[in-house]
Amino acid sequence: MSDVPTSWYNVLPDLGFELPPDLPSPRADTTGLKLQIPPTLLRQELDRRRLLPVPPEVLQRYRQWRPTPLRRALAFEHALGTNCRLYYKYEGGNLSGSHKLNTAIAQAFYYQRVGATCLTVGTGAGQWGTAVAAACAMFGMRCRVYMVRSSYEAKPGRRTLMQALGASVIPSPSQRTEVGRLALRESPQTGGSLSIALAEALADTGEPGVHFCTGSGETYSLLHQTVAGLEAQEQMAALADPPDVVVGSLGGGSNFGGLALPFLGTMLRGGREVRCVSVEPSACPKLTRGRYAYDFTDASGLTPLQKMYTLGHTFSPPAMHAGGLRYHATAKLISALYHHKLIEAAAYPQRAVFASGLSFARCEGIVPAPESAHAVHGAAVEALAADRRNQRRSILIGVSGHGMFDMAAYQSYLDTTMTDATLSEQDIARSLARLPEQPATRSLDSAPSR
Amino acid sequence: MSDVPTSWYNVLPDLGFELPPDLPSPRADTTGLKLQIPPTLLRQELDRRRLLPVPPEVLQRYRQWRPTPLRRALAFEHALGTNCRLYYKYEGGNLSGSHKLNTAIAQAFYYQRVGATCLTVGTGAGQWGTAVAAACAMFGMRCRVYMVRSSYEAKPGRRTLMQALGASVIPSPSQRTEVGRLALRESPQTGGSLSIALAEALADTGEPGVHFCTGSGETYSLLHQTVAGLEAQEQMAALADPPDVVVGSLGGGSNFGGLALPFLGTMLRGGREVRCVSVEPSACPKLTRGRYAYDFTDASGLTPLQKMYTLGHTFSPPAMHAGGLRYHATAKLISALYHHKLIEAAAYPQRAVFASGLSFARCEGIVPAPESAHAVHGAAVEALAADRRNQRRSILIGVSGHGMFDMAAYQSYLDTTMTDATLSEQDIARSLARLPEQPATRSLDSAPSR
Repeated sequence: MSDVPTSWYNVLPDLGFELPPDLPSPRADTTGLKLQIPPTLLRQELDRRRLLPVPPEVLQRYRQWRPTPLRRALAFEHALGTNCRLYYKYEGGNLSGSHKLNTAIAQAFYYQRVGATCLTVGTGAGQWGTAVAAACAMFGMRCRVYMVRSSYEAKPGRRTLMQALGASVIPSPSQRTEVGRLALRESPQTGGSLSIALAEALADTGEPGVHFCTGSGETYSLLHQTVAGLEAQEQMAALADPPDVVVGSLGGGSNFGGLALPFLGTMLRGGREVRCVSVEPSACPKLTRGRYAYDFTDASGLTPLQKMYTLGHTFSPPAMHAGGLRYHATAKLISALYHHKLIEAAAYPQRAVFASGLSFARCEGIVPAPESAHAVHGAAVEALAADRRNQRRSILIGVSGHGMFDMAAYQSYLDTTMTDATLSEQDIARSLARLPEQPATRSLDSAPSR
Repeated sequence: MSDVPTSWYNVLPDLGFELPPDLPSPRADTTGLKLQIPPTLLRQELDRRRLLPVPPEVLQRYRQWRPTPLRRALAFEHALGTNCRLYYKYEGGNLSGSHKLNTAIAQAFYYQRVGATCLTVGTGAGQWGTAVAAACAMFGMRCRVYMVRSSYEAKPGRRTLMQALGASVIPSPSQRTEVGRLALRESPQTGGSLSIALAEALADTGEPGVHFCTGSGETYSLLHQTVAGLEAQEQMAALADPPDVVVGSLGGGSNFGGLALPFLGTMLRGGREVRCVSVEPSACPKLTRGRYAYDFTDASGLTPLQKMYTLGHTFSPPAMHAGGLRYHATAKLISALYHHKLIEAAAYPQRAVFASGLSFARCEGIVPAPESAHAVHGAAVEALAADRRNQRRSILIGVSGHGMFDMAAYQSYLDTTMTDATLSEQDIARSLARLPEQPATRSLDSAPSR
């Protein structure tokens, strides 16, 4: 098997266009937020080099579980009855249970280098919190996780896992911060929200050495995630069967980007053609039904504006089990790629997704996380469509995480109590109507590049 | 990385002594049980070849997740402050979450070859049931799992996982079998027991094609598990650092045997010296405080007698979180090795075990199952003892499974509500007094061979 890549892949110099610039929030001064982030991470978003070296301290940690397996899903192919070849890259074999550890470790390293001794983080379903808790444990840093209270109560296993890793886990809203106390005064029984949890984590950075660790959807996060796609490229080359199609689930964009960008970059530099297909839930269809516009990256409206495909920062998706795909928008980089028609998008309802996820589990011996099951389903659809055209495609599926903490979701599918949420045109229009006023920028992004 | 071994390793021809023969139960006719087991499996216990080929159909399945990783635990070494080199072989990366899938797949294959279309199985904590459910899913067979009712209620995640794999999961005692109905009549609120669950699974084999799949501690199970030890041998040879000490947790014996036997065999054939150290809980100390005697393999007393280190088939260990290590005895092969002083044993209380497990999790990014945490702790003790003697040892740890479904146990350690169960001499003496009458056999096993 190949070794772990020693550089991350930076797609920006291969794009042939610039990303629309971020703009300051019209509602708040976000300088404080910027100051929390290590300059190296901010510079990585502007770097023009194609390959950025992975620091040895990060590489050493990657080697604890990387390279991750790339396997052919022979039994799943057989169950589908397809003539296509399906491969999957499995990122769920590390402690955090998902790809998120790839960037959490890199971020923890850079934060430590600027003197951080403790990271604060907001988490919803708990995967980002777990990844940062694991990374802090590895680097001997403390970690405070503000976990949305409803998740804190519904997912005791996730909470214990973070505590086992040495993190303090605080149900949010809490009494520890002004924003938390305010939320509790307004609604003492509230289950909380990711937006409040993030605000509390940001507020709880008064002591020296305590930094807020933003999130998993930044452009530098996508950079760090390319370790998965680079490995997959080498692994599929070794099998002499590079993919015709790469399929990944799409939430904030780091999983899909990490897998797809290296393949896309090879094509942009004149190499092998590849179709990169992102899969989102019908209940949160930011690419397929959203708008390419400047929007806030969180519900509070206090963050800088980024140009993204968005359903509006006030969009609240209907109840759905893939917590990691509930984000109202997707990364500005992924958004720009979609706008320039360099990647594709598909949206599927969750019962179809869980049916494919279960079939995959029974065939391949891995229960995919509900998020990852979207990619499995999208790949199955691609394979059957190729069969109808008599094309024998090589298809790569990103299985970003395991579903061991998602048994309640699988149970609801098995019990047939799971429903497919539907979104009317009005639901989406109502939320899009609350987009911030669009700035009059020079249109850097109007002309698709091919 | 090395490929998957294409043969299992059979230690029997290298032993230089015979295992004491099994004897029929003085209380029951066990012919029916034998008839359920495929002849190939029974022959594997008598085979004199050193290497038995893995059938291609099994090998293909192994390749879905094997070879499993062998990694150096550098951060854990650092945390311990040891000069020893610690490596771990991780078997928790497959769907069943433990090593048990190695033999479940082989058994499912052989059962299918004799015409089985459905396997029934009894499970306590759920790991064996999950492994057989996964194996049945892979071979397109049905699976009925009788799960001890108290576990069924306490571990909904485990139950859903088996159902997700297509198995029917029945809380035991059930109304489906005579033995279940009897148990419910006697005690309608009973939480059940593994013994009753096994008896129900055995009874529920009336229809054609339905077979009872015995368990994970048979000598043929240990044979199948050697796939892990053989891989580890090759992986450590590739690192030019073969182990001085191999440490594994000991329940029924298949995890410890699978890892240790290939190394032990090399030594028995005149190769490199190795110490194989099995680690058991203080609460169930069959090797360190039990007796080498003929005993029943289950609590019902209806199975054939095997010569084993045992605490007595009526022994009920105090409450403890490593469900997989609660068995009253250990495999007859492991027992004979201990009797002949070819392996060592140590017993530790669970709080010390969880402390090491947590430290390992924080350092290495894998939360070990409580069972596996015993091996981690045993290896830490070995390393620190070697340091005191100024010996820089290479130590291999068997991490047999992950702890994702054991968060409640870790929570009780973090909450400091966990206690160390103690066993008095009387507790053990009382149970040993109920051993069956010992047969007068020719003493095949009295003289240690070195």
